[in-house]
Amino acid sequence: MNLVTSVLDGDRLALARLLTQVENNLPEGLVALNQLFSHTGKAHLVGVTGAPGTGKSSLVNKLALYYRSLANPRKIGIVAVDPSSPFSGGAILGDRVRMRDLAGDSGVFIRSMASRGSLGGLAITTSGLVQVLDAAGYEIIFIETVGAGQAEVDIARQAHTTLVIEAPGFGDDIQVIKAGILEIADIIVINKADQPGVENTARALKGLLQLAAVTQPDDPSGHHMPEMGAIQKQPEKNSDWQVCIQRTIAIEGDGVKELADAIDRHRLYLRQSGLWQQRERQRLQADLESLLHAKLMERWRSTISEKHYQQAVDSLIKRQTSPLQAVESLLEGSNS
Amino acid sequence: MNLVTSVLDGDRLALARLLTQVENNLPEGLVALNQLFSHTGKAHLVGVTGAPGTGKSSLVNKLALYYRSLANPRKIGIVAVDPSSPFSGGAILGDRVRMRDLAGDSGVFIRSMASRGSLGGLAITTSGLVQVLDAAGYEIIFIETVGAGQAEVDIARQAHTTLVIEAPGFGDDIQVIKAGILEIADIIVINKADQPGVENTARALKGLLQLAAVTQPDDPSGHHMPEMGAIQKQPEKNSDWQVCIQRTIAIEGDGVKELADAIDRHRLYLRQSGLWQQRERQRLQADLESLLHAKLMERWRSTISEKHYQQAVDSLIKRQTSPLQAVESLLEGSNS
Repeated sequence: MNLVTSVLDGDRLALARLLTQVENNLPEGLVALNQLFSHTGKAHLVGVTGAPGTGKSSLVNKLALYYRSLANPRKIGIVAVDPSSPFSGGAILGDRVRMRDLAGDSGVFIRSMASRGSLGGLAITTSGLVQVLDAAGYEIIFIETVGAGQAEVDIARQAHTTLVIEAPGFGDDIQVIKAGILEIADIIVINKADQPGVENTARALKGLLQLAAVTQPDDPSGHHMPEMGAIQKQPEKNSDWQVCIQRTIAIEGDGVKELADAIDRHRLYLRQSGLWQQRERQRLQADLESLLHAKLMERWRSTISEKHYQQAVDSLIKRQTSPLQAVESLLEGSNS
Repeated sequence: MNLVTSVLDGDRLALARLLTQVENNLPEGLVALNQLFSHTGKAHLVGVTGAPGTGKSSLVNKLALYYRSLANPRKIGIVAVDPSSPFSGGAILGDRVRMRDLAGDSGVFIRSMASRGSLGGLAITTSGLVQVLDAAGYEIIFIETVGAGQAEVDIARQAHTTLVIEAPGFGDDIQVIKAGILEIADIIVINKADQPGVENTARALKGLLQLAAVTQPDDPSGHHMPEMGAIQKQPEKNSDWQVCIQRTIAIEGDGVKELADAIDRHRLYLRQSGLWQQRERQRLQADLESLLHAKLMERWRSTISEKHYQQAVDSLIKRQTSPLQAVESLLEGSNS
């Protein structure tokens, strides 16, 4: 039987195999993505980002357990991206903890991705994995990224709803840390809320939210827009969602129900306000641009020999041409 | 007088103006970069990265003060990149602290860049600013990035020597945090070394260094290679530099001399081992690829109408075509 059909039929083994094909950018994986795409667009994508050490994985696990415990349990997918951990097995470690909590539940599927530098970039691969899980019928898909850099933020913001996880006690640099990342938050979570400093963290976050509310209208450039920025995007209009701050103690399960309620509230808000469609558009446009970048580079590369390319690098090293001049001369030779 | 000539003559006002042109990607800035490029290649580029809250800025300030206090003072340039802070003024805050310490010293030039999403990306802009400072005769240029994500790491690794700054007390997630970033470190700094937990941090870092030493030979893919990865790169050969762990207390100035010595030792090591040239090659090649990406996208965009593009996005949203199919049909229409 066709792998795609098996995945659509709920075969977990087929799902695991297809995810591996997509992660490794194999031709059969790309063909499958084309076939599956018409089945996507149903899942609620929830991005989860924040600095390391804030307890993101535990929190996502508890959310998954909570959604599974409902009278009408939801199917949960988790894609955990750890670009900063190419050899450490950071993601594998996270998996092991997860297995313990969620093993044997066929309504949950977890995929970790520690690889980086795969052709086309991490954002493309993540998007592919999410598409597969969406088509396979997972209703809420968490896209969890380690770290708070631009790459992670770009991945997390592919989601409909973005959670930014904080924890008390990250020092006096809080202004600098949080400001950029707050913009992309729909819901802010202060995890480890039983730790000292939680009131300071909450106060600082509230202050920054107020600052953001004042600043944002003048600076649409930073609002839910991917870095790529190749084609003009529209800022969100009429956004009257109030970013809320939820406190949780993930290891105890405290605040998890309230957080899940906030996530559902945000989904409803997006649906009713029409912003769901707007975010879908931004998301798919960002996907398209990442792929365009990769394909354009691939096409161009096939028109030029390695020797020719290395000569260009040589003339840079000798300072005979500037990088821009080198690029212009490389592109002149090719018409692609 | 020509701005470029003024910059080469040491005119600080001209320098500031040119840096602004380059940061804003103005045509005259790009022309100036072409003219200046033959004057670059002299500076020692030192990347400084690490999680927020580790005290990077203070440390770089103290290093600058130290180099200025030498019998033969070195000219110091600082490029501080804060991509996560588009509206907060995080970079501006840092500037103010810096002004206090380093104001009025004509041997120091500091440039902060809080903007993100400029055409061609942050790495291209950073590289341009560094080229200008290099050509203007700054002998040691610190490239400081906030955060520990892929984007920041890619910027920091443009340097000859990369410092990774840690601080005690970042919790039990240390394995996950540090593993990825350790690979790019030539020198690890434990700043705030008077804080509790410093011995634990040092022990954990040593353990990870040993793990990395065992793992790295099997995994050249993660070693000093930019994410872009479009053209094959060579792993460093015969790398017998022992990554050292330096302790500092930046606000007291403790350990700063020793750190400066380690930085100089690394420069000497690179020079004597031939790795300096290898890193130059990698650095310039990464520059070239970033520019190629940007230019290819720009060229392609000029061949297609916004309407045509939006139609492609529409068919994605309707799930009539997959992203890959949309890209293929968009590229079919154009021959660039």
